[in-house]
Amino acid sequence: MNNRNDIIGPRIQRIEAISDGVFGVALTLLVLDIKVPVSEMIHTESDLMTAFSALLPKFLTYFLSFLTLGLAWSGQSTQFTHYIQHNDLKLNWITLFYLLFVTTVPFSTAFLSAHITFKFAIGLYWLNIFLLGLLRLINWNYAYHHHLLGIDEKGKNSLYKGMNQRIIIAQTLYAIAALLCFINPYLSIGTTIFIQLYFVLEVFAKKNKNALS
Amino acid sequence: MNNRNDIIGPRIQRIEAISDGVFGVALTLLVLDIKVPVSEMIHTESDLMTAFSALLPKFLTYFLSFLTLGLAWSGQSTQFTHYIQHNDLKLNWITLFYLLFVTTVPFSTAFLSAHITFKFAIGLYWLNIFLLGLLRLINWNYAYHHHLLGIDEKGKNSLYKGMNQRIIIAQTLYAIAALLCFINPYLSIGTTIFIQLYFVLEVFAKKNKNALS
Amino acid sequence: MNNRNDIIGPRIQRIEAISDGVFGVALTLLVLDIKVPVSEMIHTESDLMTAFSALLPKFLTYFLSFLTLGLAWSGQSTQFTHYIQHNDLKLNWITLFYLLFVTTVPFSTAFLSAHITFKFAIGLYWLNIFLLGLLRLINWNYAYHHHLLGIDEKGKNSLYKGMNQRIIIAQTLYAIAALLCFINPYLSIGTTIFIQLYFVLEVFAKKNKNALS
Amino acid sequence: MNNRNDIIGPRIQRIEAISDGVFGVALTLLVLDIKVPVSEMIHTESDLMTAFSALLPKFLTYFLSFLTLGLAWSGQSTQFTHYIQHNDLKLNWITLFYLLFVTTVPFSTAFLSAHITFKFAIGLYWLNIFLLGLLRLINWNYAYHHHLLGIDEKGKNSLYKGMNQRIIIAQTLYAIAALLCFINPYLSIGTTIFIQLYFVLEVFAKKNKNALS
Repeated sequence: MNNRNDIIGPRIQRIEAISDGVFGVALTLLVLDIKVPVSEMIHTESDLMTAFSALLPKFLTYFLSFLTLGLAWSGQSTQFTHYIQHNDLKLNWITLFYLLFVTTVPFSTAFLSAHITFKFAIGLYWLNIFLLGLLRLINWNYAYHHHLLGIDEKGKNSLYKGMNQRIIIAQTLYAIAALLCFINPYLSIGTTIFIQLYFVLEVFAKKNKNALS
Repeated sequence: MNNRNDIIGPRIQRIEAISDGVFGVALTLLVLDIKVPVSEMIHTESDLMTAFSALLPKFLTYFLSFLTLGLAWSGQSTQFTHYIQHNDLKLNWITLFYLLFVTTVPFSTAFLSAHITFKFAIGLYWLNIFLLGLLRLINWNYAYHHHLLGIDEKGKNSLYKGMNQRIIIAQTLYAIAALLCFINPYLSIGTTIFIQLYFVLEVFAKKNKNALS
Repeated sequence: MNNRNDIIGPRIQRIEAISDGVFGVALTLLVLDIKVPVSEMIHTESDLMTAFSALLPKFLTYFLSFLTLGLAWSGQSTQFTHYIQHNDLKLNWITLFYLLFVTTVPFSTAFLSAHITFKFAIGLYWLNIFLLGLLRLINWNYAYHHHLLGIDEKGKNSLYKGMNQRIIIAQTLYAIAALLCFINPYLSIGTTIFIQLYFVLEVFAKKNKNALS
Repeated sequence: MNNRNDIIGPRIQRIEAISDGVFGVALTLLVLDIKVPVSEMIHTESDLMTAFSALLPKFLTYFLSFLTLGLAWSGQSTQFTHYIQHNDLKLNWITLFYLLFVTTVPFSTAFLSAHITFKFAIGLYWLNIFLLGLLRLINWNYAYHHHLLGIDEKGKNSLYKGMNQRIIIAQTLYAIAALLCFINPYLSIGTTIFIQLYFVLEVFAKKNKNALS
């Protein structure tokens, strides 16, 4: 196996392609958790509206998870934007473990929506968000320290710190939101969605400055 | 977080790739709503045909949703054709919210096919079509006003208006079709399919003039 | 809407990308039809083997549909190989209708495997194969007559006829195989698989002559 | 059909794209096997934790299969990295049969997790791993002997042997791990995961030497 060193990993385009595949499926599978009410009890329009409104907590966790996956996809693909073209087996496996926690999101979402008042379900969901953030941090630091970023030295350093800061601040806020479940579960979930929406809306509040493009 | 401005968004190819992933899954998940009749009561060929013909309303909503998603995909990818290569976090999130309403199509389809005679189910389905149109309008106007379209000034202006007009006319027709549910639900669904087929067949009625390619 | 002519369709890469998305999901969804036997009656290794062997007809239709989709994907992507880069809304919709019948394959497979001894189920399955062939024929003829093939005039003509012949011969054979269901359903399915395997193995029997690459 | 030789196969990018599609779906479908416990018996946090811990064997097989598919994807895309751009119908079908055994992984995983103490279930799972390895070996040898690798002659030879050795060593280890089920099923599964993790961690233990990039 001393020829192993010659075996290079997949091109970064394929790492991106498998990511888009997994995210695409995970984003869409979320909706399978929302079961259409089929009941012999539904006779009138207002029966149907009542049955539909009973699904609203499911839509809440659906929206939560859509934001979770949207931020995860967005964060990962933003990082890859800075990468130079490269074949790398380590990056490959960091990404695959990242995708492992992407594929568990439909489960932890369904688990949360079925047991929304339980601290354990919120804790499990938070753990999933945390692991996604952790892997994104590892991905970024690996790329920085192994010179996989195609940015000039000065810009690289400030970008490196900016991205790290951003992930750590986000994760700190998510951890605080999760802890709010000891007061009230809906407060905890609501705060998490609020933080996620903040990160989304912040994008629209700023002028685009594409420093590198 | 003042380094944030350096953090550019995903390349437009990845925004297209995640879109194709989500659309691919959503288009195929639709079929999961059509359950194969498995019954001890099926003994003869004509029993099976009877059981199959009971599925025809499901096929109707299936075809409806296939057209809905087909037009949504087609409309979105036509818009992207005009975009210049660009990294943009705002475009990213406009697209993700667009995909949010793509992923709800399998649900609103199943909801409609289970309660096809209810105005509420038709209204919900219409809402989904409307939100897809709205986001497509936002996408297009954002791209126009932020100079993301790679077209010369004169052609751009007329194309811009043409695309807007087209979306608004289509949405007006869909709204009228939805309102027909107050007369008869099948009339409403039939009219929606008719409008969608019109937009498809119109493509084949014209000569190709690829003004920009 | 007189600006409509300026609205060009999606690039051919995106038409290919949505195709790969739909095929990828359809190929994998097939397996959801094979349910794992979970029973309190399974106590010994031989109980489990008996339960597994009861699944063998499911594996048969699974393999049949894998070949159906494999040939459909392979045939379509081979056609696209010859296409010149082009934006085309008609090609877009021909492809989407093709994909419509790709997404019905998991249904017609499950329908067949649940009612494998019924002529109606075999007829429905055959109809699906036929529609896939028909759309592939339309796709090819549209491309030829609208000068979308990037091949010199002489090679184009012989390639055009060769591809048409091939689809028509294949479809004739599938129709004969389907008709065999009037003798015996397993004979009909077996013959279909045999024909499909012939088209696969034929590929390996020949030397590669890449006339155009 | 003598024009057949002119019909070239899909470009290698599309073979990669359909692979990424199938892998993306298969990786994500695995999670559908882990059903959320929904029970009227769950009243307290500790009830929920108990119900969750009953799922741990499911998570074990989930992780096993994630590694199986991750290694399969990684191995295949590493091979394709060395391929020259080429249209090839044979490569197409080798890949499709490879994907056939990718799509069966969600089934053999669910089969194993439902019957984890049975030798037959472990044997079936091993067969799936074996077939993936076999097809990867065929893929590699086909590419080597038909001059599809874009590497200079000397490097090619040592790389060719290195890759073959690697697959054969891995498969030998998996076969031994499978045989351990005659002692204890968990020992067998644990050893398989251990071997897979070894191949993943080995990547991180080495310095990157990208001999060819």
